[in-house]
Amino acid sequence: MTTLVFGHKSPDTDSTGSPIIWAWYLNEVQGGDAEAVLLGEPNTEAAFVLTRWDIPKPRMIGDVPAGQPVVIVDTNNPAELPAGINDADIRAIIDHHKLVGGLETKGPIDITVRPLACTATILYDLMGDDTAKMPDWVRAVMLSCILSDTLEFRSPTTTAHDRAVAEDLAHELGISIPDYAAELFAAKSDVSAFSDAELLRMDSKEYTVAGKELRVSVLETTSPATVLSRKQSLMAAMTDVAKEDGADQVLLFVVDILNEQATLLVPNDLVKTLAEKSFGATVTGDTVVLPGIMSRKKQIIPALTL
Amino acid sequence: MTTLVFGHKSPDTDSTGSPIIWAWYLNEVQGGDAEAVLLGEPNTEAAFVLTRWDIPKPRMIGDVPAGQPVVIVDTNNPAELPAGINDADIRAIIDHHKLVGGLETKGPIDITVRPLACTATILYDLMGDDTAKMPDWVRAVMLSCILSDTLEFRSPTTTAHDRAVAEDLAHELGISIPDYAAELFAAKSDVSAFSDAELLRMDSKEYTVAGKELRVSVLETTSPATVLSRKQSLMAAMTDVAKEDGADQVLLFVVDILNEQATLLVPNDLVKTLAEKSFGATVTGDTVVLPGIMSRKKQIIPALTL
Repeated sequence: MTTLVFGHKSPDTDSTGSPIIWAWYLNEVQGGDAEAVLLGEPNTEAAFVLTRWDIPKPRMIGDVPAGQPVVIVDTNNPAELPAGINDADIRAIIDHHKLVGGLETKGPIDITVRPLACTATILYDLMGDDTAKMPDWVRAVMLSCILSDTLEFRSPTTTAHDRAVAEDLAHELGISIPDYAAELFAAKSDVSAFSDAELLRMDSKEYTVAGKELRVSVLETTSPATVLSRKQSLMAAMTDVAKEDGADQVLLFVVDILNEQATLLVPNDLVKTLAEKSFGATVTGDTVVLPGIMSRKKQIIPALTL
Repeated sequence: MTTLVFGHKSPDTDSTGSPIIWAWYLNEVQGGDAEAVLLGEPNTEAAFVLTRWDIPKPRMIGDVPAGQPVVIVDTNNPAELPAGINDADIRAIIDHHKLVGGLETKGPIDITVRPLACTATILYDLMGDDTAKMPDWVRAVMLSCILSDTLEFRSPTTTAHDRAVAEDLAHELGISIPDYAAELFAAKSDVSAFSDAELLRMDSKEYTVAGKELRVSVLETTSPATVLSRKQSLMAAMTDVAKEDGADQVLLFVVDILNEQATLLVPNDLVKTLAEKSFGATVTGDTVVLPGIMSRKKQIIPALTL
């Protein structure tokens, strides 16, 4: 049976690209039978990468049947995976997030989690000398994943190793990293096609803080003004999104990639208190700028308190 | 703060030896500050390995304080670890068991699980070229772990890679694998000092099968007759052990290493039914021989049904 390779339900570039990279490796190097699939619509940056390198968009799947061989990349969180994941035949997990617990396997399998910025960097390491066999389009997907997840090495999640791998790949491809990253971030920043609710859910994870269920949403953009011009309707949409998703509050952090800061929308006193307690911010209006804040994983989640 | 490296609460050779190997690597190669510790008394084979290679017995610890840096080897099961494990600062997990879920980490860490017979084989792979730096006593501990967990390559969990690593180590040490394995297994088979209850708990894991809590115990020995001469008192002790440990039934599989078979004690109709349904065995007395059965992980647990 074909092994399905997928990331999480809100496919950004790493979660779209890493399954494509790994399915290539399983098929072309390991001689296996694997297919990269998606658990959701890729974001605009991921869609750009597919078009830019002429890669067919993987088909989208819903749940997985019991016994389906699968490889999970870029998450180990059952909440971000198909409902039937623990009845699937999980063959491998490759990830760079904290272990949240909840995934179970029937027997011992390959699990590789590393504290790197990007799943694709781990894939590079796992391939070893076989990276030499990668065609340019696989290298390009890998480079795209790393530049996306590190925000061109600006994010504090970036390690020297992520950067070295990306620089090697760019060199082999004959690509300028600043030019290509600008293309990626322009694509990521084009959010005009999305409704407010879609924007709030596009790159969003749920966390419990002091008994409150928070949907922590991040929008990385080179044009924060474009997003902030919609702030009134975005704040209005938060109530419905929270209700529909069973959360107490949606938080939206608009990450300004180029200026290395985030703007948090402050629709009510709960978020005002949270901003003050978590980031020591002084909130006077309905937004607050948080200098240096770029990473949900490394900076936002560890700080959240109420 | 010193990083504590430990395996599970019933330290066999792999769970005693792998922390020693990895602490050596973290200290001597990585330049860190690590200490191998034990969560329980090593079994007779593990104790033999320490004496044979003149290695000080690691100190035993109970719980770990919150924030304690730890590396977990040879398990990912919170039930086999200190109560406070999820409040410790888990730095890495290296294991070869199925993912059971339940461990959580504060951030992304190094997790390496591989479907190999032995944790020490994974340590060898993780060290890469640094294996050349291992002193003989570290090589010897590594070889001991592999021979123990594979039952000298007889267990179906054995992979070609475990075997190749063990053969390389034995060659470098100038040791005969059959001779040394015989020493190990003789030590493992010397159970005279243990009470019946101790024997039932020595290498034991709990599983739920059809709503029943089963404590599945394995005794690997080159002298099954020695254990089976105690079968009446072992079966009598099962009731108390089950009650004390909150289990419905203790199962004891006496694994005959040399003849590659297991004898299951059959104290009552529940175990009789289980033996018949799980292994297609015909049970006539209070024991039943199961030809070819050597591995709890690979053969017993997947077969158990009621």
